[in-house]
Amino acid sequence: MAIGWIAQETGAEVIAVAVDVGQGGEDLDTIRKRALACGAVEAVVADARDEFAEQYCLPALQANALYMERYPVVSALSRPLIVKHLVSAAKEHGAGTVAHGCTGKGNDQVRFEVGIGALAPDLKVIAPVRDYAWTREKAIAWAEERNLPIDVSKKSPYSIDQNVWGRAVETGFLEDIWNAPTEDVYSYTRNPAEPRDPDELVLTFDRGVPVAIDGETVTVLQAIQELNRRAGAQGVGRLDLVEDRLVGIKSREVYEAPGAIALITAHQELENVTLERDLARFKRQVEQRWTELVYDGLWFSPLKDTLDTFVLDTQKHVSGDVRLVLHGGRAVVTGRRSEQSLYDFNLATYDEGDSFDQSLAKGFVQLWGLPSKIAAERDLRGN
Amino acid sequence: MAIGWIAQETGAEVIAVAVDVGQGGEDLDTIRKRALACGAVEAVVADARDEFAEQYCLPALQANALYMERYPVVSALSRPLIVKHLVSAAKEHGAGTVAHGCTGKGNDQVRFEVGIGALAPDLKVIAPVRDYAWTREKAIAWAEERNLPIDVSKKSPYSIDQNVWGRAVETGFLEDIWNAPTEDVYSYTRNPAEPRDPDELVLTFDRGVPVAIDGETVTVLQAIQELNRRAGAQGVGRLDLVEDRLVGIKSREVYEAPGAIALITAHQELENVTLERDLARFKRQVEQRWTELVYDGLWFSPLKDTLDTFVLDTQKHVSGDVRLVLHGGRAVVTGRRSEQSLYDFNLATYDEGDSFDQSLAKGFVQLWGLPSKIAAERDLRGN
Amino acid sequence: MAIGWIAQETGAEVIAVAVDVGQGGEDLDTIRKRALACGAVEAVVADARDEFAEQYCLPALQANALYMERYPVVSALSRPLIVKHLVSAAKEHGAGTVAHGCTGKGNDQVRFEVGIGALAPDLKVIAPVRDYAWTREKAIAWAEERNLPIDVSKKSPYSIDQNVWGRAVETGFLEDIWNAPTEDVYSYTRNPAEPRDPDELVLTFDRGVPVAIDGETVTVLQAIQELNRRAGAQGVGRLDLVEDRLVGIKSREVYEAPGAIALITAHQELENVTLERDLARFKRQVEQRWTELVYDGLWFSPLKDTLDTFVLDTQKHVSGDVRLVLHGGRAVVTGRRSEQSLYDFNLATYDEGDSFDQSLAKGFVQLWGLPSKIAAERDLRGN
Amino acid sequence: MAIGWIAQETGAEVIAVAVDVGQGGEDLDTIRKRALACGAVEAVVADARDEFAEQYCLPALQANALYMERYPVVSALSRPLIVKHLVSAAKEHGAGTVAHGCTGKGNDQVRFEVGIGALAPDLKVIAPVRDYAWTREKAIAWAEERNLPIDVSKKSPYSIDQNVWGRAVETGFLEDIWNAPTEDVYSYTRNPAEPRDPDELVLTFDRGVPVAIDGETVTVLQAIQELNRRAGAQGVGRLDLVEDRLVGIKSREVYEAPGAIALITAHQELENVTLERDLARFKRQVEQRWTELVYDGLWFSPLKDTLDTFVLDTQKHVSGDVRLVLHGGRAVVTGRRSEQSLYDFNLATYDEGDSFDQSLAKGFVQLWGLPSKIAAERDLRGN
Repeated sequence: MAIGWIAQETGAEVIAVAVDVGQGGEDLDTIRKRALACGAVEAVVADARDEFAEQYCLPALQANALYMERYPVVSALSRPLIVKHLVSAAKEHGAGTVAHGCTGKGNDQVRFEVGIGALAPDLKVIAPVRDYAWTREKAIAWAEERNLPIDVSKKSPYSIDQNVWGRAVETGFLEDIWNAPTEDVYSYTRNPAEPRDPDELVLTFDRGVPVAIDGETVTVLQAIQELNRRAGAQGVGRLDLVEDRLVGIKSREVYEAPGAIALITAHQELENVTLERDLARFKRQVEQRWTELVYDGLWFSPLKDTLDTFVLDTQKHVSGDVRLVLHGGRAVVTGRRSEQSLYDFNLATYDEGDSFDQSLAKGFVQLWGLPSKIAAERDLRGN
Repeated sequence: MAIGWIAQETGAEVIAVAVDVGQGGEDLDTIRKRALACGAVEAVVADARDEFAEQYCLPALQANALYMERYPVVSALSRPLIVKHLVSAAKEHGAGTVAHGCTGKGNDQVRFEVGIGALAPDLKVIAPVRDYAWTREKAIAWAEERNLPIDVSKKSPYSIDQNVWGRAVETGFLEDIWNAPTEDVYSYTRNPAEPRDPDELVLTFDRGVPVAIDGETVTVLQAIQELNRRAGAQGVGRLDLVEDRLVGIKSREVYEAPGAIALITAHQELENVTLERDLARFKRQVEQRWTELVYDGLWFSPLKDTLDTFVLDTQKHVSGDVRLVLHGGRAVVTGRRSEQSLYDFNLATYDEGDSFDQSLAKGFVQLWGLPSKIAAERDLRGN
Repeated sequence: MAIGWIAQETGAEVIAVAVDVGQGGEDLDTIRKRALACGAVEAVVADARDEFAEQYCLPALQANALYMERYPVVSALSRPLIVKHLVSAAKEHGAGTVAHGCTGKGNDQVRFEVGIGALAPDLKVIAPVRDYAWTREKAIAWAEERNLPIDVSKKSPYSIDQNVWGRAVETGFLEDIWNAPTEDVYSYTRNPAEPRDPDELVLTFDRGVPVAIDGETVTVLQAIQELNRRAGAQGVGRLDLVEDRLVGIKSREVYEAPGAIALITAHQELENVTLERDLARFKRQVEQRWTELVYDGLWFSPLKDTLDTFVLDTQKHVSGDVRLVLHGGRAVVTGRRSEQSLYDFNLATYDEGDSFDQSLAKGFVQLWGLPSKIAAERDLRGN
Repeated sequence: MAIGWIAQETGAEVIAVAVDVGQGGEDLDTIRKRALACGAVEAVVADARDEFAEQYCLPALQANALYMERYPVVSALSRPLIVKHLVSAAKEHGAGTVAHGCTGKGNDQVRFEVGIGALAPDLKVIAPVRDYAWTREKAIAWAEERNLPIDVSKKSPYSIDQNVWGRAVETGFLEDIWNAPTEDVYSYTRNPAEPRDPDELVLTFDRGVPVAIDGETVTVLQAIQELNRRAGAQGVGRLDLVEDRLVGIKSREVYEAPGAIALITAHQELENVTLERDLARFKRQVEQRWTELVYDGLWFSPLKDTLDTFVLDTQKHVSGDVRLVLHGGRAVVTGRRSEQSLYDFNLATYDEGDSFDQSLAKGFVQLWGLPSKIAAERDLRGN
């Protein structure tokens, strides 16, 4: 839509870039043709779904990335991938400027511009919607005047972003945060309240990577897609929260992420079995920071890079099977087994076979509590 | 059960102490009589349900306390309360020694002994089960020999602990972590998979305290009980995880906490609306540490005390209503409203009334990304 | 200096505000007169030294605030105080706009504007130096043209900010970070390399507040001033570092803070004696975050406020004496004593009187190391 | 000393293990001969100084490891190295039990036993001093009875541990924490109060490794030794603090670590120049946790291992020169330069050449402060 306007305003030749991150909708060829019809001198379209799954969704899964403990950073993951393709196209075609269509009050402008700044510090960025107050209405009017082949169906009252990791819905009547979402908001998930039979599956991980479903080998992309289908059919992964945007405001967001939520649920429990306690406790802090950085547009940043090495190192034992029941909007782990398990039946059992030496406990308890006890004696003394 | 044995072994007079924390089962009078029949010279029984709700469950709710992001520290909350009553009874009756019945491989021994050490550093503690390998079988045999009026129903294959905040089940076939829990494990919750109608309610908080349900004023205890009933009827709050015990082993635990999970879900979302972003982000770290301390038996400790002042200070604006739908094992927030809300419709909306000055964004984005950009230039230079 | 310009450009009446935070230099009366001579319709001058010491320096001391573990946030402390007086004067005189003289690449613009936004969200802020590129040279020329009574001594090649908590020096030849500072950079401290006799003193704290030096009662302001004098005479508190500014760049800063460094050194060691271990460990994280927030201009922010309650609560036992030797640029603690001490001679000694029960240690050590041991067995198994 | 006793009590053949970590004192051959004379069937002695410097001191330097922000974990570093050699000797000679000479109230028993448990979970550990109350006096008497060639000089009133990274002194009159250390306590450092000329040097790091002093290539061991000599001659690195031991008590410790303190000082400042801000801020938390783990005996633990990968990744740009002046007990950085520098003169300067776009600042400041401003408006509304 902005292609013609940019061409006209800047006098530059415009190259359109579109990336398939599993958002569905039009096929890449249609997109390509329309871009050219709108005045682009070239249209670069890329099927990046496997790349997206393996290099963006997988690290998020391994970090159990849930912003505000809820939102699996759906849009925040696709932006750096799009930036990578945008920068790559710019370099290939010798472009000095790139444009994006974000507004000035969302997170995506940050993710695009900070990403571009990190990958290609010399590229100039323009943001017509933000910097020239180029609204949806103006855009449509401008395009209709020129008979450009845009899709002006104004039906959706929502602002929607979707990819294989999930789907984000905002604006419209949801801006009143007392309003409950209605069924028409959802597209990746069926209504969890409808009666249907549960779906049980076994998910296999190898070093933090989902590699099989019910024994059938899958790629990361296939794992996400298959779980989107099966968990989505059970209404798993609907989220509704008031969220802290980087630009300083709170917004109300509704998400659907059936595959992401099912995978993270299984992955967390497999970590419970295979990660040592202190490591697991510290990893939670790393997960929170990783997720904040990614949400806040700092995918390409030194701290995010180094946290990646931390997370990756923790995954070396996260291998095994998780049995998952999907039903009524819930993804529930009902069993786990792993050759890398740190759960030791003989240490845990209260039945025969108990190998835990209880005589060690008294000394442990006494010294564990000693600092509190000394402080308590001091406090009692003071009274 | 251990009353007679302790009396015999130590030659001391035994005073029994029992505290009602909402665990149900026998009434306090029955417990009192049996204790006396078993040889106690005195039996102190206390209905501490309101105290437990207000001074132990409420701080846990305000800290959104979920150990390993799942378990609402049910048993860990009741131990310090029992310790308080135990120490108080010991002081009143001039006792020099207190006893508890925990094993040497669980968390509760730590919670009891560290608590006692902090409240009454001079009290001696004995733990017959742990220190004299006093097993359940030995105890029953010993009691039967003497015709003591104990309840020897061996029916339950599980080890169970329950109070108004929830219910914990372990051991038995659950010690094989691949086994799924069966329905007989549960008592606070109905099967979430059974079809039934949703239940919707409005929960009102005043400074982090639940004060009304559907407009009817409730005490904290009533709020928990009512939500145990209504959320339990919808199968909300079943949890199944492999958990890191303080004594260094992993154990498999199944919990039910319908009221706790419903309350925490609502409270978290009201915080999303009323807490400023940086405060909310740091509070997550405080919540994790608070929960670890409480799980690890350090309720009465200097750090826990100071974290309490932190959490309490954050609650001063956590007032408002949350609409909650309970259904099929899920507690879902569908609306929130608050006079203390930081959600600003005019800043958030993309429709008319938008008061956000988008011209500020460009500068923000550029400086926000500047450190990454400078680092990227350095890295590119290096190649 | 900017008074006349603002008056002319905006047509508004200008009220000058000057606050004494112990920066020395001209007396308030002289400043007042010059402001009026420059065209101000009113000049508000306030001696805020005690307020600064008690409400700004003291919390920084109690937080052991050292940005990047070095810099005692000297300038960052005075900005919110100045903001408070500025806002108060604006309200009293019914002003709708306030102005500050900061550039656009420093931290102080953030501290002023964010502070004003938090205390008086409706006040408009103008920043002539930043927004109208109003450089020092332009300002001098403009003033000379109009014969305004400004002090145009261009002697200092440095940009200097000072108050009772310390002194900051930047720019000039220090912008080459390989250059060592020369003696002329310093004013609060004597050369530490010159031979002189050591100075020993005993500092008394009451709940984290310095209340006496060598037994003589002092106010917080007096404590800082006296230590500036005595520690400064010994060359204590010179700092030279490359620092991360909030606006995204690194800058080279030289500081002198003899009193602050001496006080923090003593305070930290008294905390070592009086704070319980877990509390002390967590307080370090709180200190870091508190300091980042204050450095980053968020003095008036919800998280900073709540961290204040945390820090304050930790101080309730920080009472006692610290013996400090000041010499050759070092402030060294050589003794500490406190009725609130958690150091227990009988538990610590290896001589007679040892009351530590070493038999407890074996069990403690075994269970402390159990998670690592189980993980090691797993890892060995895997090979 | 304990060799004969262990042999007699257990009936086992004793193999002595001694490791040179730069502690000085007797040469390894003398130690070996005395061990054999005391009844050992074999004596394994190893010069592990380079291994210690490269694999233990270097990670501590890169983590800027200062326990309680003061103590460079001197003894805590040598224990895991000794454990490694002990376990290796046990495996080579088919031993099933290892012994150490630690008491039950220190940290070292934990470091030895947890380390052994992690490297060789099947080895049995005995601790005669702790578990059989085998005191120094008893040991001497026992040895003298048997004419064993031990060094019974009872002269030192202190308990001392030393290696190339530093020296720890405790007990004696230092157990009264009001007493100042006397000069006879020190051995690695000269009195900083004595007048002498400053010593200036340039230290070169390559990816966090000290590789040259004044342009001369050095190994890590040589760097530490040379700085021990030169910084020690200037009285650098004396430390005196009350410290939180893992076993729950506070103890008073005096340390000397001239090389460690000089190296860490230089390394921290080079990181200030080469690490991006967010990375540097998070690294401080990692440093604290790393140091606590190492102090607490968890060198061989999953979290420590993963934190190592974090720290190592941060070092990839920590290359360059630091100019250091050693004098009067201080190690002061006076200059730094690096091809990996993130300090950008043109962005930092206030003189000509300024490339910082100040027009970006206004938007940044406004949005940076927006959450605080919205919260302030809410709070004002509430009043």
